[in-house]
Amino acid sequence: MSKTAEGNYFEDFSIGQILAHATPRTVLEGDISLYTALYGSRFAMQSSAAFAMDNGMEDLPADDFLTFHIVFGKTVPDISINAVANLGYAECRFLRPVFAGDTLSATSEVIGLKENSNGKTGNVYVRTTGINQNGLPVLEYVRWVMVRKRNVDSPAPQTQIPALKNNVDVADLVVPEGVDFQQYDAVLAGSPYAWDDYDVGEKINHVDGMTIEAAEHMMATRLYQNTAKVHFNLHTEKQGRLGERIVYGGHVISLCRALSFNGLGNAAFVAAINGGRHVAPCVAGDTVYAWSEILDKSPLPAREDIGALRVRLVGCKDHQPIDFPYKEDEKNYHPAVVLDLDVWVLLPRK
Amino acid sequence: MSKTAEGNYFEDFSIGQILAHATPRTVLEGDISLYTALYGSRFAMQSSAAFAMDNGMEDLPADDFLTFHIVFGKTVPDISINAVANLGYAECRFLRPVFAGDTLSATSEVIGLKENSNGKTGNVYVRTTGINQNGLPVLEYVRWVMVRKRNVDSPAPQTQIPALKNNVDVADLVVPEGVDFQQYDAVLAGSPYAWDDYDVGEKINHVDGMTIEAAEHMMATRLYQNTAKVHFNLHTEKQGRLGERIVYGGHVISLCRALSFNGLGNAAFVAAINGGRHVAPCVAGDTVYAWSEILDKSPLPAREDIGALRVRLVGCKDHQPIDFPYKEDEKNYHPAVVLDLDVWVLLPRK
Amino acid sequence: MSKTAEGNYFEDFSIGQILAHATPRTVLEGDISLYTALYGSRFAMQSSAAFAMDNGMEDLPADDFLTFHIVFGKTVPDISINAVANLGYAECRFLRPVFAGDTLSATSEVIGLKENSNGKTGNVYVRTTGINQNGLPVLEYVRWVMVRKRNVDSPAPQTQIPALKNNVDVADLVVPEGVDFQQYDAVLAGSPYAWDDYDVGEKINHVDGMTIEAAEHMMATRLYQNTAKVHFNLHTEKQGRLGERIVYGGHVISLCRALSFNGLGNAAFVAAINGGRHVAPCVAGDTVYAWSEILDKSPLPAREDIGALRVRLVGCKDHQPIDFPYKEDEKNYHPAVVLDLDVWVLLPRK
Repeated sequence: MSKTAEGNYFEDFSIGQILAHATPRTVLEGDISLYTALYGSRFAMQSSAAFAMDNGMEDLPADDFLTFHIVFGKTVPDISINAVANLGYAECRFLRPVFAGDTLSATSEVIGLKENSNGKTGNVYVRTTGINQNGLPVLEYVRWVMVRKRNVDSPAPQTQIPALKNNVDVADLVVPEGVDFQQYDAVLAGSPYAWDDYDVGEKINHVDGMTIEAAEHMMATRLYQNTAKVHFNLHTEKQGRLGERIVYGGHVISLCRALSFNGLGNAAFVAAINGGRHVAPCVAGDTVYAWSEILDKSPLPAREDIGALRVRLVGCKDHQPIDFPYKEDEKNYHPAVVLDLDVWVLLPRK
Repeated sequence: MSKTAEGNYFEDFSIGQILAHATPRTVLEGDISLYTALYGSRFAMQSSAAFAMDNGMEDLPADDFLTFHIVFGKTVPDISINAVANLGYAECRFLRPVFAGDTLSATSEVIGLKENSNGKTGNVYVRTTGINQNGLPVLEYVRWVMVRKRNVDSPAPQTQIPALKNNVDVADLVVPEGVDFQQYDAVLAGSPYAWDDYDVGEKINHVDGMTIEAAEHMMATRLYQNTAKVHFNLHTEKQGRLGERIVYGGHVISLCRALSFNGLGNAAFVAAINGGRHVAPCVAGDTVYAWSEILDKSPLPAREDIGALRVRLVGCKDHQPIDFPYKEDEKNYHPAVVLDLDVWVLLPRK
Repeated sequence: MSKTAEGNYFEDFSIGQILAHATPRTVLEGDISLYTALYGSRFAMQSSAAFAMDNGMEDLPADDFLTFHIVFGKTVPDISINAVANLGYAECRFLRPVFAGDTLSATSEVIGLKENSNGKTGNVYVRTTGINQNGLPVLEYVRWVMVRKRNVDSPAPQTQIPALKNNVDVADLVVPEGVDFQQYDAVLAGSPYAWDDYDVGEKINHVDGMTIEAAEHMMATRLYQNTAKVHFNLHTEKQGRLGERIVYGGHVISLCRALSFNGLGNAAFVAAINGGRHVAPCVAGDTVYAWSEILDKSPLPAREDIGALRVRLVGCKDHQPIDFPYKEDEKNYHPAVVLDLDVWVLLPRK
């Protein structure tokens, strides 16, 4: 029998099943540097240990999405190696900062199953938790994917679709321990705009574009130990739909987040992902732009120094988003759109 | 009003103005590793902590140009985001070594202004200082750039051009604290040639060529958090003059410096940049070569162990510099030349 | 006289000669992160400091091949800069783990010489030892290369070919100090298969393919400070046999080792390289696959917790190795094969 991991097919999942994912991963200073080299992020809290500590943190934290991608990567061999589509995210909360030296591992619980009417695939819903070396959760999120059946004759499981929140409640957002923005230095941070300065409905074109190279997205995806084959193998993918390796969707998220500095420079932390969709794939050579819409804003309970903005972060390719491209009707997106992400970010208040 | 930073235009600058640049940046071990991966530098002081400490340093220092690029990157959003040309450098001195863990920030003072006769642009001269987390200067330099006017009807400022030294005085060169080359091990360092072995007028072909890839120059430039658009956006640049993204000039400097190891292997530190010009742009696919000419040499005051060489470091592309290509006449360079850099480097004496 | 290093030609070597290689190199956390980004390796001992320490190590060790490549890189300017072929490896043993902060240096002893019948080249055999900052050996191996003569009229040296073992004896394999696999967690490690589960003669297709990009192999090769010109210079190589830069053979080794996780996930350490051959060159754009054959297996003396597998690790390009491509006859390999490596790896026992 082959010793190669084949991963789970749809009929291998059952409600309540717990998957303990390999391989634990120690976050190193080099990961933080590589993240900067890959995306050019400039948010001050993740750029400067001195700035982070002046604002109450114990050390320089890893970028929230670096944590996300590492945890996500662990789940791929068990959850999505046989997936045909990554359908969505919900209820993602960042629970605790990650520092160089922390070791991350992940478990997932199957919380929903639904076989598709074609009998060949089914949707699997998992709630994944990333923990550090002390067993403390750093991140949790729900993801659902469409997974192939190993055997189309396998009986369908009872359909169970989890009730998922449309967005994370403000009361459930976690401010990283120790953070205090009363002395936040907006000049050093590079943007004069505090939480108070943003209006619901406001749209921001982040202006800058970043072209993706194959070496970059593959290095990023390997850094996250994400093993999905479509990102790495030109020999097979050149026969595929796009004729090229598909960029890991999380790479596009990180690019858009980094681009969003120009207009949202004080969005110091991503506290939650309310939902997200990789609307269209990217390949090497695509130039990614981003724009944001402020969907909601809220103070945080018992905090005078910090507020939350709910932001729709839209990525588009080969299209400067002066026209804020989004959905063209209920179902269809503007052809330039590649990412539709709904997040809560935390900013200092005036 | 847009929250996107538009940067400063020519009429936004005034003599004596101080710009405090965002974003502070902690230098990590990963930055040092990435620098090695990007350029392959082999100078022993920056390659081996043991070697550095055997020669009096407290730890492995970052490469001088890594420090330069990080400080330079901070200035881009304020100084040169609306520049049409980076005209020159002068009076650059490296004042203090940078170690992993140090946090760098930067300020610039406007020291010169001159509107160009076309009325559309003007030259801005700034003196930039990079400091560490203790407020101590690590680097200072003068740079001048040609910047667009926002409004061609804005009145011209009074012309003021700073008096700049043709080269940094030897008495002003700083040997990094603690450095003592009395026990310097030239075998470990990889070159038998001490300061004493170089003659003024001597030319050295550094022989090796290094081809630039887009992923490399973009990763480097993002590592330095340099946001100049021309380096990253193929979607717009393919309509531009070169049809490609322009390589950050500092990337070429670092390539040439690394190539210069082969012939100047004991040039342990860059103490000063007397002047420099990016003669022609590079794009991905270009192969960079370098050659050096010894312009001057001087002992250092009160040091028996260390001497300074003034070196013209010339970069050229797709041309093996056996013929030492340089200026063809007073104004024009050989078409292969991309970089003309004038530096003071420090070497052990016999 | 030129100050550029020309390296050694065949007539510069003599039996018993000791070469102390430049430049010492401190392994940093960033090197470990870059190694992950370049190859996507997931072996738990090198991925997680917590896992490594739970299994008796003092810290997260560098990947064995990262150590190998850094030591190898040091030897290039002295041994193989004028080589026309890298002929083989033997008697390579990993003697001591390397951790971030360790400084590596290397020396080689010439142990064999044989001029080729054409009178233009000769084979040089060296035994190289890598040591850490405490002077303790971390690695030793024999390599032989075919090197050009500077002057075809130089007299041939007396032929001396060292007696090399066909494979490292099990009794000579070194288990890294402190390692104890009695509590090894195979779920966290990501593979259920212990040493006991592998049979001699068993073949494993590692399934996944990884496409090489120029930026990746050049960044890797510079990270190892390997200066062989053919890896970096498109300007000259486009005139060469392949029309492209040749990928450093060690880059392909590391890719194959990382791919072998899928099927050999508990092969925690490479203890020895019995032999190896770069059967054919790779260039950017090639997709590398790997398969393994278990050549031998042995318990280790006085160890109940750990056993050794002798594995033939075969790399091939643009060819999914379902047919386990290897030699077609005594002399010739299947045209897809690029690497034929014979190693001892250490796995936990049940």
